[in-house]
Amino acid sequence: MEMVLRPVGIVIKKQDDISEIEIYQEYSPGLKSVENRTHLWIMFWMSRLSEADRKVLQAHPMGDRSKEIRGVFALRSPMRPNPIGLTKIELISKNENILIVSGLDAFEGSPIIDIKPA
Amino acid sequence: MEMVLRPVGIVIKKQDDISEIEIYQEYSPGLKSVENRTHLWIMFWMSRLSEADRKVLQAHPMGDRSKEIRGVFALRSPMRPNPIGLTKIELISKNENILIVSGLDAFEGSPIIDIKPA
Repeated sequence: MEMVLRPVGIVIKKQDDISEIEIYQEYSPGLKSVENRTHLWIMFWMSRLSEADRKVLQAHPMGDRSKEIRGVFALRSPMRPNPIGLTKIELISKNENILIVSGLDAFEGSPIIDIKPA
Repeated sequence: MEMVLRPVGIVIKKQDDISEIEIYQEYSPGLKSVENRTHLWIMFWMSRLSEADRKVLQAHPMGDRSKEIRGVFALRSPMRPNPIGLTKIELISKNENILIVSGLDAFEGSPIIDIKPA
């Protein structure tokens, strides 16, 4: 079975802890009533990770070598077989197809995969 | 950019609310120390959804037509552009590459995409 993701938007970093999530026009009907939520789960593709990063299955927590090595499924490490980031953000405001959010730990330009109510 | 997911395991339904998550041997090193967690986020591919389901951008909450229509990004509806299910489960036990879990609302045979600590 092919499991191919479609980008529904993109991350734009602003100052400090604030980001914009721009949802592409074709998907913007999916945002109806999102403004009634205070918190949302954002799924994004960690596009800077390499094929080698997808092969990593164990790591030290936060890269701290004094801590015992763990499997990536027991870690929040970005290195994992499917580089999907999952972050609960605070929704500050919505302006048409743009969400202004706080707390999104995604790099500029990361593709947005999904948004779910938290 | 191509965003292609790799199945790391599969869902096997047991009685009542109990499921097994079988992680494929090649990915089983990723499970090290997972047994120290009581709860985990499971990401799975909702493989029964069709291409038409991926085009749905608005729906009534829980299919209840007495409730106002919302965007799928404000809903837990399985119909959405990227059919990734996200469920917080309770880890009951781990036996080598098999996790026994409670509360996973995924169909038999659903591909597992990722596991993250909750």
